[in-house]
Amino acid sequence: MERIEHRVCFGGWQNVYSHRSHAVDGAMRLAVYLPPQADTQKVPVLYWLSGLTCTEQNFITKAGAQRYAAEHGMAIVACDTSPRGGNVADDSTYDLGQGAGFYVDATVAPWSRHYRMYDYVAHELPALIEKNFPVTNRRAISGHSMGGHGALTIALKNPGRYCSVSAFAPIVAPSRVPWGERALSAYLGRDRELWRAYDATELVQTANEKIPLLIDQGDADEFLQTQLRPELLVTAAEAVGHPVRLRMRHGYDHSYYFIASFIGEHIAYHAKELRNAR
Amino acid sequence: MERIEHRVCFGGWQNVYSHRSHAVDGAMRLAVYLPPQADTQKVPVLYWLSGLTCTEQNFITKAGAQRYAAEHGMAIVACDTSPRGGNVADDSTYDLGQGAGFYVDATVAPWSRHYRMYDYVAHELPALIEKNFPVTNRRAISGHSMGGHGALTIALKNPGRYCSVSAFAPIVAPSRVPWGERALSAYLGRDRELWRAYDATELVQTANEKIPLLIDQGDADEFLQTQLRPELLVTAAEAVGHPVRLRMRHGYDHSYYFIASFIGEHIAYHAKELRNAR
Repeated sequence: MERIEHRVCFGGWQNVYSHRSHAVDGAMRLAVYLPPQADTQKVPVLYWLSGLTCTEQNFITKAGAQRYAAEHGMAIVACDTSPRGGNVADDSTYDLGQGAGFYVDATVAPWSRHYRMYDYVAHELPALIEKNFPVTNRRAISGHSMGGHGALTIALKNPGRYCSVSAFAPIVAPSRVPWGERALSAYLGRDRELWRAYDATELVQTANEKIPLLIDQGDADEFLQTQLRPELLVTAAEAVGHPVRLRMRHGYDHSYYFIASFIGEHIAYHAKELRNAR
Repeated sequence: MERIEHRVCFGGWQNVYSHRSHAVDGAMRLAVYLPPQADTQKVPVLYWLSGLTCTEQNFITKAGAQRYAAEHGMAIVACDTSPRGGNVADDSTYDLGQGAGFYVDATVAPWSRHYRMYDYVAHELPALIEKNFPVTNRRAISGHSMGGHGALTIALKNPGRYCSVSAFAPIVAPSRVPWGERALSAYLGRDRELWRAYDATELVQTANEKIPLLIDQGDADEFLQTQLRPELLVTAAEAVGHPVRLRMRHGYDHSYYFIASFIGEHIAYHAKELRNAR
């Protein structure tokens, strides 16, 4: 891992690394916030997954999360949203290709060559972080929009791997909304049966471990009705008795101003769940 | 004023406007955060001046200040750092021209046509804000780097106009550092006597009203020795009994991670001074 940024923030370190990923077979960038507590003890980790068009930079520069991570003694890992580079398949639109990996393992060419963001986030990343940083194996996961979809699906698919999961304005049913239909048909092909493995609303119906799902959603979000549709997940979860909490936030839109306003509550929630998991 | 952004943030509104400025004779962008308290009462205003290359966006997206402004019931106004546009004089370097107005009124062509950021910030902006928003006439001012220079000089030059002033990693002696020498010689000409009117270290020696100067400075700031040199201001202030407080912050650099880490303390300081001024 090559460290390319190293800055003190709220008494801890906001670092950015470049590393060679086996999962995506290429270079990936990765942001790691280490709170002051990590100087003297191992700390738990919150994995953050960003939305369409984002890199590892958006969350660390705009969310204001470091303050709360320093308060609670939690590391935060924020990765990129896709493989990148001139030799990596891409598309000219913002919702497919680079910046739009959708946290799946693509099976269809040309995407299958590098687009294995599910494997990267669910397997390679925790191993890499736990080998190289002063962290425990207690993990939480959260994300925004496409990254909320990633957090929910990865938590549901990996019972026991995460102590807690939350999401901001997530895509909860990618099989049934335009962003998801476009990405999943490109990355996985036309057989919709195969999409179920990456659809939180489908996965929740058969989840072994009933990890509670915490979701914040702005009611002025411009994508609420067309792309996000959190009520689909709530209905599916409640039908099988899976704990879900959807908090509608009056007036908030899809921007980082929404994330910044509530990331403190999410980090406090994860801190509590991570403590209880000890 | 045309409103071009309007987003809920920490229960208040983060707005961005475009307006026609008389001072710079052109369109300017302007960010205004209104805390929740502004729904029912008039609130005081913190004016924020950004550093080289910044627009009105940097502070509102990266500093995390809205949380503290909402806590303390304070509006925050963040303006651009220069006039902008195809018909506005510019330079290909980052430290002169667009994005580098230095908060002076230029007297030398071609800059004198639009570069009147001192007049804009010190006169036009408070009048515009106090006419159009639910705010009191109690004002505080702060800024970063070139904007810290702007905040210190504008407060020192306008006794009684601001209840309090603070700065992050300010340029305190532009007459004696490369950034300042380049900008002041371009905007004001070669006569260094004229530069004194925009140099905090000079102004403090003759200030009528001894408004306390609060400065935070990272000791790992890459520009500390060459461009910032806060000790020059401290020495000059102490020689005339002008109250100054310089807090060196261990490990911090010149970035927004530094500002984000301490903006909460600055806003609390201004809130207290603004209350005491009632």
